[in-house]
Parts: sequence; structure tokens; C-alpha cells
Amino acid sequence: MEIFRNTAELQARADAARALGERIALVPTMGALHAGHRALMDAGRARAQRVCVSIFVNPTQFNSATDLAAYPRTWEADLEACREAGVHWVYAPEPGDLYPDGFQTWVDVSELSEPLCGAARPGHFRGVATVVCKLFLAAKPHVAVFGEKDQQQLAVVRRMTRDLGFDLEIVGVPTVREADGLALSSRNVHLAGEARSQATVLVRALDAAEAAVLAGETSADALLEIAHGELANAPLAEIDYAELRGPRDLELLCGPLDDAALLALAVFFPRASGAGDRVRLIDNRVLPKPLPQEER
Amino acid sequence: MEIFRNTAELQARADAARALGERIALVPTMGALHAGHRALMDAGRARAQRVCVSIFVNPTQFNSATDLAAYPRTWEADLEACREAGVHWVYAPEPGDLYPDGFQTWVDVSELSEPLCGAARPGHFRGVATVVCKLFLAAKPHVAVFGEKDQQQLAVVRRMTRDLGFDLEIVGVPTVREADGLALSSRNVHLAGEARSQATVLVRALDAAEAAVLAGETSADALLEIAHGELANAPLAEIDYAELRGPRDLELLCGPLDDAALLALAVFFPRASGAGDRVRLIDNRVLPKPLPQEER
Repeated sequence: MEIFRNTAELQARADAARALGERIALVPTMGALHAGHRALMDAGRARAQRVCVSIFVNPTQFNSATDLAAYPRTWEADLEACREAGVHWVYAPEPGDLYPDGFQTWVDVSELSEPLCGAARPGHFRGVATVVCKLFLAAKPHVAVFGEKDQQQLAVVRRMTRDLGFDLEIVGVPTVREADGLALSSRNVHLAGEARSQATVLVRALDAAEAAVLAGETSADALLEIAHGELANAPLAEIDYAELRGPRDLELLCGPLDDAALLALAVFFPRASGAGDRVRLIDNRVLPKPLPQEER
Repeated sequence: MEIFRNTAELQARADAARALGERIALVPTMGALHAGHRALMDAGRARAQRVCVSIFVNPTQFNSATDLAAYPRTWEADLEACREAGVHWVYAPEPGDLYPDGFQTWVDVSELSEPLCGAARPGHFRGVATVVCKLFLAAKPHVAVFGEKDQQQLAVVRRMTRDLGFDLEIVGVPTVREADGLALSSRNVHLAGEARSQATVLVRALDAAEAAVLAGETSADALLEIAHGELANAPLAEIDYAELRGPRDLELLCGPLDDAALLALAVFFPRASGAGDRVRLIDNRVLPKPLPQEER
């Protein structure tokens, strides 16, 4: 496994691989690797001869200095996880390399960045789109792999890739979960005790809404009420948002649903350490398209 | 010479050339090709085995629909000029291909886009940076060639290239001029009679300022006064801006100059046809670094 701190060296390595006809998969991460990232790496290995994992805690996508400072950093364990997964290249640039003095170029995916996490975290998706653009130009991948847990991020990255005309394929990988259903997240380490146990309320809300759709419920209001009803079972949870949106354009859905709909949830829980910001967890599911009345 | 309307086909062609070890030069143009563009193509040929000229009148960098509609389009002559210059690939996409439905991704080089032409044309450099990013991703060049006449554009493109980490070299080519000194521009076709003859006032203002620096003048105010004095000799000219700025960061310069300085001019002239917007001409020169007192 090769470790690259320098962007030009990675680009030269990518050129050499491409000249040999090798396909390159990029798995962008912020480190603190867990089984969810492992699923991304496996998806990359299934699609390319060279898998590059980037490990970079991107400062421009954080809204809060305390959140940035508190983000878990587990470099040695991350390298071990990459080795175990058969990763070929680890790209771990310094912040000053990706954002040199006088840096002022931003990639903005305008409408898709506004709702949901974008509303709660102004500038977040501008930071994401900008760094992903830079990672694409650094690793020169044929395919880039992202988790479906961050559905809005995936929608933003897909749109940026299409709009700017990147010659690569975006692959979304289903969310990996703990045995009790909690979506894996690097932020889960900040949960403990009752907060950890109540955190499963997100997946239970998604399950309840999906079950309702399968049982014939098509009303957006009714489905959101069902999700809110589940979330109310977790007294420590403070809802940031619970919304039904179009899976591709993230337009707000209301009235009777006639197609697949994204149910997106974000909830705050108290942080285990007591200090710092609350822990913000997200989860989502694309609810199936309702069957026509006669087919139910 | 191959003509590409389709971005994916150009990308595949670029991949094939790269696999053979061929270097690719991109010359972005909006058509209406003249000897200035020819100099860009020649610079490309000197640096690469494959020269790609893009011909695309980019709607997102125009502020005015009349300016966009009036922009000269000379497709057959452009193709002939490319053939004569030994260009290998012409890339001429349709607007709907580069800006599909739901397009919403913008590349913004923030500070450098604000002054000079950016102040007169809000959103102009966002359109330029976005389309140049797209052209880079389409043609996959090793080197991209731009004219120094559009110094601010060159500064914006250089910064974007560095900030996003494009693995390519930006080459600036000196301005090509008519026999009387007028900088070549596709907009010159809209000048006639007295306006055409007075349009040489831009280069005369640059000459006068440069001569003053060489004669020992270091005061920014005095140099601007000299430029304004020349411009006043053209009664049809209405000044948009005349400014001294740092060549790289475009910061406003004042007081005594101690380094090379960009003198940038933009002037309106009446349009030959009488109809439509006025004709806006720009010109600039990087004035030499003043010699220390003792060396003059």
C-alpha cells in the first residue's frame, strides 16, 4: 500500500496506472474508518484494479470549530483498515496543501445544497463539492464511491459530476448498520448510555414509514406523522428535520406520493463527554413507489 | 481535423491520445477566430502533439442578451482557420449539452472576480471559470493556452487551476495587435470610421504609461493621470475603468510602485451599426518594475 501526502505524486501515479489500462476507484473519507467505509472500499475493489482511499478531515465543510476539533482522528487504525481491505493507495494531504494561501475557488451546487443538512449547516455542501472536485482531480478515478447514508451529499456529488462533466461514474453504497439498526457513523463514538440506546429511533422511524407505504399509505403528511410519532419515543432526541423529498432533485414532497420518496431525518443527541456541541445523527431511506390502488 | 460535438467522444479521444503518451493542448475560444487566436494555436502546437480548439459562445459569461446575440459567429471561417493552423480537434458542443436541464454547479474564483471587468459584468467570471473547468474536463489537456489581452481572465483561470488542483499548465500568450496597435478582438468588427480610428487610444495610453515608468515615474497616481490624459484624446471613448493592480492578485495599487504593475483599461465606443449595446474594448500591460533611483 502506497501513502501519498503530495498531490502531484498521486496524479503521476494515477497517470501511470491509466497508461497501463488500469481502472481507478476513489473512496473519499474523513478517516475514523468503520465497517461502512469498508463497504465502500469493497465496492471500489469490485470495480477497479486500483483503489485509492483519501483520508482528509476537510475543514471547509465544518460549520463549527468545536465540531472540527472533536472529529475523531484514528490514523494508525485507519491505515490498518485500508491494508486489510486491500486498498492500494492512501491519499492523506495536509490542509495547507489542499487550501494554500490565497485559496478562493469554490464549487457550488446551488439548489441541492440548500435544504436539509444545507439549511442546518450553511456552506457545508460548498465545502463538500469543492473538496470532492479536488479529490477527483488528484486521484483521477474512473469511479468514485460514496455512502447512501449521506443521501444529500450523494445527490450533490452526482449533480456536480454531471454538471461539470467529470468523466467518471458515481457509485452509491447502501448504509451499513449496527446489529440494532443504528447507521454506522464516525460520530457514533460520541454517544453513550441512554443516548446510544435511543439513537436507534432513526431507523425505527424509517422502518415505520416504509411499512406504512407498503401497507398502502400514500399521504406525505401521514408518513411524516408516523415518523414523528416514532421519534417522539426517544425523549433525548431533538429533531433537526424530518422531511420527504424527491430522491434526485430534493424537491419538497407533499400531498399523495406517486413515486419513490426520500425520507430524510436529522436528530440531535446529547454528547457522551458532556462538553462541546450536541451529536447530530442523520439517516434516510428511499421509500418505495406506492403501488396503484388495484395492485395493493 | 476531427470535429467533436459530443463531450464523451472527445473525452474518449483524449484518453486514447494520453494512452499513446501524446500531450494535449487546449485553446478555448468563442469562435470568430482572428490572428490572436492563431497565436494561441501556434503556442499549443509548440507544446503538444494534439491541439484541441474549443469553439463555444458561452452564454453564462454574458451579462446582456443583446451582447450574446450580437457576438460574431463565423463557423466556416473558424474551421478553415483551425485547419490552416494544423489543429487536430475542434470541440464545438451545443449549449444544451454543456448546460443541461437542472444545471446548477458553479465554479467561483471569489476575490479575483470582483474588480475590473468583474465589477462591470457581474457573474462574468463565474461563467468563465465554470466553462473553463468544463472544457478542461472535456479535453483533458496537459496545457491550456489563453491570451494575455484578457489578463483578469488569465489570473482567474490560473487561480482556479491551482486552487482546484488541475494537473495541467496554463500558458499566457502576448496580445496580437493590428498594425496601428489596436489589440485584436472579436468585438473589433463592431467598430467603424472614427470609433475604429480612435480605438488605438488604449494602446497609446499603455505606451505612455510604460514610457513614464522607464523614464523614472513611480507614482501610481501620476501614471494613471498619464493614461487618462491619453484617453482624453479620444472624444468617442467613455472610460469604464483605468486601474493599476497587482498582476497576480489584482490588488489595487497606490502610492509609489516598487514592483511590476498591471495597468488595465476598459473603454466604451459607439457601435458601428448604431443598434445594440456600445462596444467595450479592453487592453492592458504589465508595466516593468521601476528601477531603483541609483540605477536610472
